[in-house]
Amino acid sequence: MTGQDLKQALAAFLSESEIVADGQPFLIDQRRRYTGKADAVVQPDSVEKVQALMRFCFEHGIAVTPQGGNTGLCGAAVPDGGVLLNLSRLNRIRSVDLADNAITVDAGAVLQNVQQAAAAAGRLFPLSLASEGSCQIGGNIACNAGGLNVLRYGTMRDLVLGLEVVLPDGGLMSHLQPLHKNTTGYDLRHLFIGSEGTLGIITGATLKLFAQPQTTETAWVGVETIEQAVRLLTLMQGRFAERLCSFELVSRFALTLSSAFSRLSVPVEAEWHVLLDLTDSVARDDLGELLAEFLFECGFENAVLAQSETERLNLWTLRENISASQRQLGASIKHDIAVPIARVAEFVDRCAPALQAAFADIQIVVFGHLGDGSLHYNTFLPEVLGNEVYQYEDAVNALVYEHVLACGGTIAAEHGIGQVKNQWLPRVRSEAEIALMRAVKAQLDPHNILNANKLLP
Amino acid sequence: MTGQDLKQALAAFLSESEIVADGQPFLIDQRRRYTGKADAVVQPDSVEKVQALMRFCFEHGIAVTPQGGNTGLCGAAVPDGGVLLNLSRLNRIRSVDLADNAITVDAGAVLQNVQQAAAAAGRLFPLSLASEGSCQIGGNIACNAGGLNVLRYGTMRDLVLGLEVVLPDGGLMSHLQPLHKNTTGYDLRHLFIGSEGTLGIITGATLKLFAQPQTTETAWVGVETIEQAVRLLTLMQGRFAERLCSFELVSRFALTLSSAFSRLSVPVEAEWHVLLDLTDSVARDDLGELLAEFLFECGFENAVLAQSETERLNLWTLRENISASQRQLGASIKHDIAVPIARVAEFVDRCAPALQAAFADIQIVVFGHLGDGSLHYNTFLPEVLGNEVYQYEDAVNALVYEHVLACGGTIAAEHGIGQVKNQWLPRVRSEAEIALMRAVKAQLDPHNILNANKLLP
Ligand SMILES: Cc1cc2nc3c(=O)[nH]c(=O)nc-3n(C[C@H](O)[C@H](O)[C@H](O)COP(=O)(O)OP(=O)(O)OC[C@H]3O[C@@H](n4cnc5c(N)ncnc54)[C@H](O)[C@@H]3O)c2cc1C
Ligand SMILES: Cc1cc2nc3c(=O)[nH]c(=O)nc-3n(C[C@H](O)[C@H](O)[C@H](O)COP(=O)(O)OP(=O)(O)OC[C@H]3O[C@@H](n4cnc5c(N)ncnc54)[C@H](O)[C@@H]3O)c2cc1C
Repeated sequence: MTGQDLKQALAAFLSESEIVADGQPFLIDQRRRYTGKADAVVQPDSVEKVQALMRFCFEHGIAVTPQGGNTGLCGAAVPDGGVLLNLSRLNRIRSVDLADNAITVDAGAVLQNVQQAAAAAGRLFPLSLASEGSCQIGGNIACNAGGLNVLRYGTMRDLVLGLEVVLPDGGLMSHLQPLHKNTTGYDLRHLFIGSEGTLGIITGATLKLFAQPQTTETAWVGVETIEQAVRLLTLMQGRFAERLCSFELVSRFALTLSSAFSRLSVPVEAEWHVLLDLTDSVARDDLGELLAEFLFECGFENAVLAQSETERLNLWTLRENISASQRQLGASIKHDIAVPIARVAEFVDRCAPALQAAFADIQIVVFGHLGDGSLHYNTFLPEVLGNEVYQYEDAVNALVYEHVLACGGTIAAEHGIGQVKNQWLPRVRSEAEIALMRAVKAQLDPHNILNANKLLP
Repeated sequence: MTGQDLKQALAAFLSESEIVADGQPFLIDQRRRYTGKADAVVQPDSVEKVQALMRFCFEHGIAVTPQGGNTGLCGAAVPDGGVLLNLSRLNRIRSVDLADNAITVDAGAVLQNVQQAAAAAGRLFPLSLASEGSCQIGGNIACNAGGLNVLRYGTMRDLVLGLEVVLPDGGLMSHLQPLHKNTTGYDLRHLFIGSEGTLGIITGATLKLFAQPQTTETAWVGVETIEQAVRLLTLMQGRFAERLCSFELVSRFALTLSSAFSRLSVPVEAEWHVLLDLTDSVARDDLGELLAEFLFECGFENAVLAQSETERLNLWTLRENISASQRQLGASIKHDIAVPIARVAEFVDRCAPALQAAFADIQIVVFGHLGDGSLHYNTFLPEVLGNEVYQYEDAVNALVYEHVLACGGTIAAEHGIGQVKNQWLPRVRSEAEIALMRAVKAQLDPHNILNANKLLP
């Protein structure tokens, strides 16, 4: 069933405004790398209608691709025919429960709105990404999003207490009670978290809340080697524990780009840079002093502490503008990788020469969340700065991922697999594991209608 | 293959000392409620031998029951024929990695030994149960153990970075790198956590470490209602956040029992009691003062703060001896339940009259981890204090679980399902969910050799 027929059939249970007239803008991913196609783009405004849609598509074997804010970086929300199911209209904050420190929301709620609802209740919802103004809770869950506060609060996986999911056949799996402990059979919730829209449509979630930080201290520290940055991290974990909220690594080249783009001067001169935040949920006046003393005692003297909120924001702007300053350079081949923190230096030291041997002029922008071992490892070929660069992607990926795997790392830290990396999955998961994934997929989605050709190889 | 034949066949790949001569002590659970049987009890001392064993049993369709410290409370490690695979000899601490804040251990390592290895490295492994001197990491993972520090550090599920598992066919699934972020396909690790030995033999694990607490403050607070205890919890979460490490509820009756048993006087007079710990990983001299002020300001004046380590230990002894003082009374029908914290009071208020209506003299001992909504809800029938009490178990369970479910709770918070509650699983999981669990089980264990008749109904 395609085109007009399909839209007519959908009109049996969706209102006119729920069937998008011009679906084109929903078919291109945010990096403008993939353009998909769909016979219909729909935005149902209730869970029941999502169920009706899935029942219908299940019966007729129609492909469905779920989509949240469409900010994903792996082409996982780009459809290849059938129905594009955009969740944007399922966007209510359902309830806040202070005794259980939990918030229950529709999956289409924008991350920033959830942060704000938590703040209005005097609590913190800690997930924080540069895309937070448009990405949605359902997308965050489907990708197991990470971001800036993982070191302290974990990834999205760690923040989900309960899920409501419409299964491929239209059935509802609902566990939205804020239960902090529940061991009744195999944990199915975690199968859906990180499943990139291939197992079910997430329609609601109960999420953990935290106390709001009362004191924040920010430092920028220059070091000469990654080993020194890791040493600083280890010492800080011992001394400040969970107060260490962000610990970002920036290479000299990344900083140079961002500093020019941001029109902000470089805080300190060094080969490698660390931007770190300490936060305390009980006000603590002497935290800045303790941090300064600690850095001094441990020999990290090439450092500045933000003395005002403006200084703090400027330091973070330098970090956050790296992506934008890169984009000005042109298209790049990006990698969202992680290795054990103890091996980050080894990875960087080995991978760069291998890339340079293969691509003489290659430029490498290294930055990322060193506190959890994940790096954005982006490469430019100065002669090819348009989308044509992707013809070299397989060759570059092969080199980068070989080094990642040799260091015990992962090819997908926080952005997922999507359609960009599924051919790589067999390198990081055994046959038995992939067979189990396929068995799970086949059990829930026997007609393979949900986001087919994503994630699994 | 049974008895002598089996032992002879096992001797092909296990040494004499790995085949236990008198297996009888391993066949009875710690509550002495279930007595199982086995054709052989083995204690292999390497992962390779566990693989050889599973390959052999897979080929010959021989049942295998994994067992750790045998401290489980649901009869899940009691075998019903075949091989009992006790993991005790797989007990090495493999490595400690400070940069990644992680420890890698054999699954047979005793929890207390892992705590000590972490402490020796200047770190904390926070899982803490009364059985920590004998339960094993593999058992903790298989049951998703909880305990006293869940409020701050989560359950075992939250503490596992990586797993090494021998699958039913003898294949190895190994992901022991300390990766803090990794989203490569469906999360299989969480299927094994809480699977109660039905999906694979856990042989190793990489676990998260934390900074050690530098300051600890302990208070005992008397309140008249559970609502007041919940109000205190909510206020404390807002004020002290993750410093709130334990928040235990004790009923007057439970305290009376424990106080007599422990020969310690009751700290304060009240209907309900809260024992709470604040810990800070950065030394903070004024934490006790802040706590005292806070309790006073919020109107919780019927309280004592421990003024010395002895006073602190005495308060905790009162809490920890509740189980032992109960055992002196005789056999009881126990429930390991959780409901949303906001509904704990409602549950207690409704369940007691229903039980009393059915069993006039019933005595109820209520205590537990209010901070995460989980309660030990134990019932005595004063006329039947031996194992004969279990003839009333179904009737008592039916009443208790109906009320738990009506309050949106769970019938298994931290002890698992085992063989005690599997007939209840269909009440808390939908048909589609149980079908998915069965599909996972069938894919990994097609001959159903691994801990059959446990967990699944
Ligand atoms: C500027 C920028 C910065 C970013 N920074 C980070 C970062 O720091 N950390 C990080 O982890 N990511 C980051 N991302 C990536 C992206 O924002 C996240 O992956 C985000 O979680 C995607 O959410 P979304 O709602 O946009 O999902 P989409 O892009 O719409 O979809 C992503 C996947 O989720 C599925 N999906 C979406 N909604 C549902 C649902 N309700 N039910 C089932 N499946 C669903 C889709 O099918 C698709 O497979 C960044 C992206 C941008 C553009
Ligand atoms: C006094 C006392 C206090 C307790 N307090 C608590 C508490 O506060 N919180 C709490 O959660 N529990 C508590 N328990 C219950 C028990 O200690 C925990 O469930 C513990 O995690 C069990 O570990 P074990 O090694 O003894 O496992 P076992 O009892 O040997 O086995 C339990 C289950 O795990 C499986 N298993 C064991 N090892 C492996 C392995 N290596 N691979 C695969 N499967 C395996 C078994 O097959 C079985 O299904 C308490 C028990 C006692 C006796």
